[in-house]
Amino acid sequence: MKIRVGILGATGAVGQKFISLLEGHPWFEITAVAASARSAGRAYGEVVNWIEKGPIPEAIARLEVQEARSDHPNLACDFVFSGLDASVAGDVEEAFARAGYAVISNAKNFRMHPDVPLLIPEVNPEHLALIERQDWGSSGYIVTNPNCASVGLTMTLKPLHDAFGIKQVHVTTMQALSGAGYPGVASLDALGNVVPHIGGEEDKLETEPQRLLGGLEVPADFETSAQCNRVPVVDGHTACVSVSFVRPPSSLDAVKKAIRAFRPPLEVNGLPTSPDRALELLGPENAPQPRTHVDLGKGMTVSIGRLRPCPLLDVKFVCLVHNTIRGAAGGAILNAELLAQKGKILRKNSEL
Amino acid sequence: MKIRVGILGATGAVGQKFISLLEGHPWFEITAVAASARSAGRAYGEVVNWIEKGPIPEAIARLEVQEARSDHPNLACDFVFSGLDASVAGDVEEAFARAGYAVISNAKNFRMHPDVPLLIPEVNPEHLALIERQDWGSSGYIVTNPNCASVGLTMTLKPLHDAFGIKQVHVTTMQALSGAGYPGVASLDALGNVVPHIGGEEDKLETEPQRLLGGLEVPADFETSAQCNRVPVVDGHTACVSVSFVRPPSSLDAVKKAIRAFRPPLEVNGLPTSPDRALELLGPENAPQPRTHVDLGKGMTVSIGRLRPCPLLDVKFVCLVHNTIRGAAGGAILNAELLAQKGKILRKNSEL
Amino acid sequence: MKIRVGILGATGAVGQKFISLLEGHPWFEITAVAASARSAGRAYGEVVNWIEKGPIPEAIARLEVQEARSDHPNLACDFVFSGLDASVAGDVEEAFARAGYAVISNAKNFRMHPDVPLLIPEVNPEHLALIERQDWGSSGYIVTNPNCASVGLTMTLKPLHDAFGIKQVHVTTMQALSGAGYPGVASLDALGNVVPHIGGEEDKLETEPQRLLGGLEVPADFETSAQCNRVPVVDGHTACVSVSFVRPPSSLDAVKKAIRAFRPPLEVNGLPTSPDRALELLGPENAPQPRTHVDLGKGMTVSIGRLRPCPLLDVKFVCLVHNTIRGAAGGAILNAELLAQKGKILRKNSEL
Amino acid sequence: MKIRVGILGATGAVGQKFISLLEGHPWFEITAVAASARSAGRAYGEVVNWIEKGPIPEAIARLEVQEARSDHPNLACDFVFSGLDASVAGDVEEAFARAGYAVISNAKNFRMHPDVPLLIPEVNPEHLALIERQDWGSSGYIVTNPNCASVGLTMTLKPLHDAFGIKQVHVTTMQALSGAGYPGVASLDALGNVVPHIGGEEDKLETEPQRLLGGLEVPADFETSAQCNRVPVVDGHTACVSVSFVRPPSSLDAVKKAIRAFRPPLEVNGLPTSPDRALELLGPENAPQPRTHVDLGKGMTVSIGRLRPCPLLDVKFVCLVHNTIRGAAGGAILNAELLAQKGKILRKNSEL
Repeated sequence: MKIRVGILGATGAVGQKFISLLEGHPWFEITAVAASARSAGRAYGEVVNWIEKGPIPEAIARLEVQEARSDHPNLACDFVFSGLDASVAGDVEEAFARAGYAVISNAKNFRMHPDVPLLIPEVNPEHLALIERQDWGSSGYIVTNPNCASVGLTMTLKPLHDAFGIKQVHVTTMQALSGAGYPGVASLDALGNVVPHIGGEEDKLETEPQRLLGGLEVPADFETSAQCNRVPVVDGHTACVSVSFVRPPSSLDAVKKAIRAFRPPLEVNGLPTSPDRALELLGPENAPQPRTHVDLGKGMTVSIGRLRPCPLLDVKFVCLVHNTIRGAAGGAILNAELLAQKGKILRKNSEL
Repeated sequence: MKIRVGILGATGAVGQKFISLLEGHPWFEITAVAASARSAGRAYGEVVNWIEKGPIPEAIARLEVQEARSDHPNLACDFVFSGLDASVAGDVEEAFARAGYAVISNAKNFRMHPDVPLLIPEVNPEHLALIERQDWGSSGYIVTNPNCASVGLTMTLKPLHDAFGIKQVHVTTMQALSGAGYPGVASLDALGNVVPHIGGEEDKLETEPQRLLGGLEVPADFETSAQCNRVPVVDGHTACVSVSFVRPPSSLDAVKKAIRAFRPPLEVNGLPTSPDRALELLGPENAPQPRTHVDLGKGMTVSIGRLRPCPLLDVKFVCLVHNTIRGAAGGAILNAELLAQKGKILRKNSEL
Repeated sequence: MKIRVGILGATGAVGQKFISLLEGHPWFEITAVAASARSAGRAYGEVVNWIEKGPIPEAIARLEVQEARSDHPNLACDFVFSGLDASVAGDVEEAFARAGYAVISNAKNFRMHPDVPLLIPEVNPEHLALIERQDWGSSGYIVTNPNCASVGLTMTLKPLHDAFGIKQVHVTTMQALSGAGYPGVASLDALGNVVPHIGGEEDKLETEPQRLLGGLEVPADFETSAQCNRVPVVDGHTACVSVSFVRPPSSLDAVKKAIRAFRPPLEVNGLPTSPDRALELLGPENAPQPRTHVDLGKGMTVSIGRLRPCPLLDVKFVCLVHNTIRGAAGGAILNAELLAQKGKILRKNSEL
Repeated sequence: MKIRVGILGATGAVGQKFISLLEGHPWFEITAVAASARSAGRAYGEVVNWIEKGPIPEAIARLEVQEARSDHPNLACDFVFSGLDASVAGDVEEAFARAGYAVISNAKNFRMHPDVPLLIPEVNPEHLALIERQDWGSSGYIVTNPNCASVGLTMTLKPLHDAFGIKQVHVTTMQALSGAGYPGVASLDALGNVVPHIGGEEDKLETEPQRLLGGLEVPADFETSAQCNRVPVVDGHTACVSVSFVRPPSSLDAVKKAIRAFRPPLEVNGLPTSPDRALELLGPENAPQPRTHVDLGKGMTVSIGRLRPCPLLDVKFVCLVHNTIRGAAGGAILNAELLAQKGKILRKNSEL
């Protein structure tokens, strides 16, 4: 008897990725899909503009789409994933939490709310304690995952912060088109071009990692300067990062060792979506690249390369994250798996 | 009676760009083309794999290709442009200088030679004084232009260095495929991908700007950290730059004003290849972009955008340079024009 | 005193191309720009999302945008170009014709109207006689140019039809992204992909060439099968064409000769936008290519290559047209120039 | 005890794909890798420029590369796959056949040899009888798979030929970059471009399908006209096809039914690399597309769409094949599996 899942924003790009990744999931089973009023009442397979590779899972294609409503937050499921657009996520997610649902959200709306965990299981599972502080007048709660580019950066910083203390971060990203959703970036802006601006992105990169690497109340104390660019890549956000440390390591090898020695908390290791290696330090001087490394660990591994001294800060390197898997739907699923393992997400007895 | 020009490395990508840009030049006329022994003795139009847009200029197509030889440096022309590959440029360029030719080179071999000017006319025309120190046993000499990515960065830094003194530079580049020549980057490595490594490039970016912005003997005293990436763009190197200053400006407006107030030396302004504006500060938050801005000033204008405070250093911004025009052949032609105007390049009386 | 031009649909992709191409036009001067109600009343430079290369011409940026209304067809100009979307072009263009304007349209709405010329000046200038049949209750009239892909195909077929009589045409197109306007094709659908369907396009390719190559009443009598694909190219529709003839030529050389001998009517030759060569037959076996040939004749030349026997029909070849210049705005401008030369477009005496 | 496999041309693009696809194969195990003299004697992992996604299988990385020699055809394996370049494949493959090896080749050299099967298991398994006619003075033999574009076309034609008899075929291909190997197409020729020529490709498309759909001695009797283009797609050859029939079907539905009813011979169905569906007829008007359909059936399914009447021939449609899997290494592996099942490839008793 699997735990029953509802997908808010099921027809969007993130919603579709949830559906793809959950196919055959050992613990979770999609029993409800919700979208805007426009799609409601019809079969999912008829209304969705399916952009994932491979066919729509047949069972999902037949599901009737519900309307995702803040005034009637009701879906036949045990908890919900939210792939809603930020323009509506705030109201709808809160309504579902008030109605008693665990809301595992990919939207940005509650990421910086002091009582809502901004979670990467390998980085700050202890932040789940914040759930206890949430009071929606029900047993419901909200858990969020970070911005797609923040995920890759933060996972890479984690072992370095633990070992040496992050002091300053300079990061320039080259972000994939899929990060903008669908239809997202116009092809005339994308093909053979670089767009050196992504609305709101730099602010997220300059604040989310501190929250993720900090305590429940106080973010980690380091300063970040971010420059974000859109490049003609389908999947995979690449970041060029320079870092200075509070306690500079004695050598570059000490940094490599810290990255290679990184192990997620034991409770995370066995989760179905947890990759063999959360971080992979690559050797070749031209790695990582989206084309060859974005799918490592089925898109859940963050790859790192070109680790070398930085003339200004202490070290510099390149990291790569699959933005729609580890950086969005896959990350949210891992969050839900951690919650399910901790007994925070249960199959309810009530009949659907 | 135009000045007669020879092109060393005429069949390569840079050589072809020289030929394209010199078509209809008011002062210079190509009278000789030289390449490797493989092409020598045949008509240029028959041996070249022409990759420029538009047809090969007819007069050039009919020229017989000479062999570019270090042991027989002789071409029917008044001076030479060198688009030679670095693997052969050293010997051949020196041989032509010894044989009395002015060698206006795009190759890297002599860029850091203490007696060879590394020149951007708008930045350091006074460095031409170094020519007097060269002694090749003839009236010949060598002048070089910088690496394509260095050109864009240095031109942008110029007014800032003059006004506030550059202290630290952090630069991440997203460089075009044409920078690797032809065939250059394999399409499977380029399409939908980012390659976070370009051999030798970071070192050039970390040293050439200091030489360009320094005096004849002593480079400017600032430290640079560079990270260079290849992205699927045809023409146009984009750079995300953060800068700190010796004398920080009172406001961002002061920085804007410094950039907008930049004027090249008068002697440069009237040169045929000199653009109306050497630097163009753009307003829109998503500018500059290769697709829309790379051809500004016929590819000779460096465009700048997204000027804003940097949380770590003082300011950050994005700059864009046309790598094969301003950053290579066009830059070399401007160098030659400055030399011609100063009487350092003359039409010789001897019959060809 | 130039003829005053209004642009209907001035903020769209085609409208912007009209503005770019008309900059510095010797006969025409833009004095009015019209768009949807959303943009009306504000300066053009403030409302347009400018996607053309280079800056917005300053005089145009300052023009106040008018609303393009079918119930109040009034612009301060002598005639109008229409770059309107087909969803509104029908009503608005008719209204302007009724109000006495010559409407030179790029929209599809009136292309197959029996009294409206579907015009390529080099192909069927005699079709302008149809204008006399139009009766909008005013001196106004409508002239259209063909679908962008039809233009390239038809211009190539013209000399072949004249010489040998076209019997059957098989055409497969690989069409550029700019043909879909802006934002047009989503980048996730475009990058590294082929979309083997363009709504309504095949029907146009199967019918417009017959009208263009036929008489005023009766289209040319040949059958076409078209397959249209979208490919990740910015500008330039490439078509692979096979043709059979009513009077098959004796040799491939006879076909080459027919293409090379093609000369537009004398009245077209001297028009400002008329290229030196309307058709260019290229020799290399890998030509034409969008990257190297799309800008031939400033985008007004159709290039042809790979002419060879077809095992099924008589000959096959590849042709390439710049879809937004020759295939849209540039073609419409050439149409207007022909009309102006014939005295059908005049500068009116009335003050603006 | 798995059957031991050697890979000729192991460091090339096709060789790497063999290695990727054979990882974890239930019947075959790679025990030898051979390449040019340049790589011989060193560990595979050290000499290969690995372009496949994911890491090199560890056991293969440690194998010492042998030289693929025609004068010393000896590898420690039971049979060989050949991913050799055509320039050397002829001599080396023949030498290995003479030395008693079954040679399952992807090269073109022996495809049209009257005694060598050109094989697609779902299309013409009976052609394996040709092996008996081969006489290399040993028990060795050669089996080939078709050109990558021919595979997709032929598999699609198979049920149509069986039902209605193919009379004429008009095909225009849009072929992926990976079809040219590595480094293959230069990125400057690929990005945002179409190259309307692929050396030798049209000839293969105009002759191989007839051999595949014919008998052992006599090819099928139909005529094909092919036009081949290179487009900026990583994997997946798309073809626009028009077909006329000897016995035209009564309706389009009859054609659809024939395609949907297609079932491979029973002996093929259970093979490890055989996909659930060899052909998949897709419904949406914009399918198939490389981005979404190329990996169907793990790259072994040919997808078909846009089936509709053709104004010139009988029907037209679009088909898509994964060129490096079904069209190359995967197809060869399926060939070997069929041979193994028939007892034509055995694990030999001799110790390696």
